Amino acid sequence: MLNFYTQKVESYLENYRLPVSPVNLYEPLVYFLGLGGKRLRPVLTLIAAELGGKSADEALHAAVSIELFHNFSLIHDDIMDNAPIRRGLPTVHEKWNSNIAILSGDVLLVKAYELISKQNKEHIPDLYHLFNKTAIEVCEGQQMDMDFEIREDVTIEEYIAMIRLKTSVLLGCALEFGFLISNQSVENRKNIYDFGVNLGIAFQIQDDILDLYGDPDKVGKQVGGDVRANKKTLLYLTAEKICKNLNNNKLNILKGTKDLDKKVQETSAFYKEIGVLEETQKYLNYYYDSAMKYLELVEVNSSKDNLHQMVNYLFNRQS
Amino acid sequence: MLNFYTQKVESYLENYRLPVSPVNLYEPLVYFLGLGGKRLRPVLTLIAAELGGKSADEALHAAVSIELFHNFSLIHDDIMDNAPIRRGLPTVHEKWNSNIAILSGDVLLVKAYELISKQNKEHIPDLYHLFNKTAIEVCEGQQMDMDFEIREDVTIEEYIAMIRLKTSVLLGCALEFGFLISNQSVENRKNIYDFGVNLGIAFQIQDDILDLYGDPDKVGKQVGGDVRANKKTLLYLTAEKICKNLNNNKLNILKGTKDLDKKVQETSAFYKEIGVLEETQKYLNYYYDSAMKYLELVEVNSSKDNLHQMVNYLFNRQS
Repeated sequence: MLNFYTQKVESYLENYRLPVSPVNLYEPLVYFLGLGGKRLRPVLTLIAAELGGKSADEALHAAVSIELFHNFSLIHDDIMDNAPIRRGLPTVHEKWNSNIAILSGDVLLVKAYELISKQNKEHIPDLYHLFNKTAIEVCEGQQMDMDFEIREDVTIEEYIAMIRLKTSVLLGCALEFGFLISNQSVENRKNIYDFGVNLGIAFQIQDDILDLYGDPDKVGKQVGGDVRANKKTLLYLTAEKICKNLNNNKLNILKGTKDLDKKVQETSAFYKEIGVLEETQKYLNYYYDSAMKYLELVEVNSSKDNLHQMVNYLFNRQS
Repeated sequence: MLNFYTQKVESYLENYRLPVSPVNLYEPLVYFLGLGGKRLRPVLTLIAAELGGKSADEALHAAVSIELFHNFSLIHDDIMDNAPIRRGLPTVHEKWNSNIAILSGDVLLVKAYELISKQNKEHIPDLYHLFNKTAIEVCEGQQMDMDFEIREDVTIEEYIAMIRLKTSVLLGCALEFGFLISNQSVENRKNIYDFGVNLGIAFQIQDDILDLYGDPDKVGKQVGGDVRANKKTLLYLTAEKICKNLNNNKLNILKGTKDLDKKVQETSAFYKEIGVLEETQKYLNYYYDSAMKYLELVEVNSSKDNLHQMVNYLFNRQS
């Protein structure tokens, strides 16, 4: 069923014509948008629009605007993170150069705004208002993430605040776009938004867990990448907190382990041993449950099956 | 009289509160917006709004949105041009770093959009529509400018097309913002826009000329900076064209001159000798005259004195 919506987004993007010139501005965008991805965010907009009583097609421009924004933020984040690879292929700054990645990212952000302008005039001010708020928050989240890399006193609360801004509010925005377009009440809009934000936080926490405990074949990347790079994930911050309480120095020793495969193996075992995995799963469950409560509060006549299906899709990657 | 409008913009910016945190995201913006500048673009919006029969105050959010956009583009351009100094002080990427300059630039662009959302709801869709179109063109102009640096076959027509996009359409947009807010006819809007675009092209050409022939005390920078850096300005492209027709190789010899003061002096004399200065001034006059014709076509009841004053201010820097 979700394929129905993904197809709509893919076919919109296939017919989406960017100008040909200047080649160095637009070619990187054609390349990057063609790298694929799950198109998760625009699908949420389409499902929400239908749930609110409109057709998916009536929300397509707005849905794809969210996808363009998401890709803009990836292009710029990749420069800042110095990431060479995205979806198995070279990032824009790697394939071209940083200047081209900056500027084509900029124009993609404006292109996202441009698509919003194609929705019905009556919805434009509200869509822009929510989009601006969300875009600002995403930038704030990215800055916090960069700040955390060089800080040694990051708390769990700060980490949750960061992933909320960097990745989760955009899911809320995507869903609320669908409800704005289907003229839902302010309360319904708030509830679907909060469903999205909590879902996003839970999803990001699951991502942290799968990075270390996921089946590498199913997760699609090397196990323990975060541990290898000493990334401050929720697992790490939880371990830090527990170790502090226990006066246990093992985390620092593990961090310095030169043999990276050994480091991953031992960290994985240690986290289980001192209850880090269990504690992190509690966070995941808390945000997952919050999301489901907000979804329950959404009052519509149609069935919420598609959203439940999406939730199952997102949280059963291993099963 | 123009001071009246500049004051309004300055006082708006003084009261404009950016969030405090994340510090690394917003501090660079407070710094950069505080570097000053002529606030030319927002003043144009305010004058146009009054000319159209509204008060300047009714267009203030939109006016400052143009100024924020302009500053966003400067922050990102400075990274791409590797420019260490802006208005006598370090650029953002120099004072902080490139990542911070990318991200604070991004958020400033969104902040520009946010201000547009503060205008009356009835005007928001049209303001956004024009702003999107303009922002895309400015990015295209910047890309063309970067492409020109490594191209050896740039034509005069391409150069004019580049400065039109990179700098002039924003003046047109600033003026049309004022006319959109004062509910002017489509025809009036088109004419004030074209006035701005042509004015911008004339102004940029004047800038090229003053770089080599201006009084250094009045221009406020080293004479012949463009010649020293072998920049492809209108003077250079015109010289190239004339030399090609004359089968004259002197331009290439001048370009390679190691003694930079001598290079500037001899280029300056050579351009006069073969008629480059005169030809370039013809271009300037053409776009200046076009601008004035479009201004004439604008049909309003109030006096256009403020715009004429602005034009005099822009084109009498030397007198």
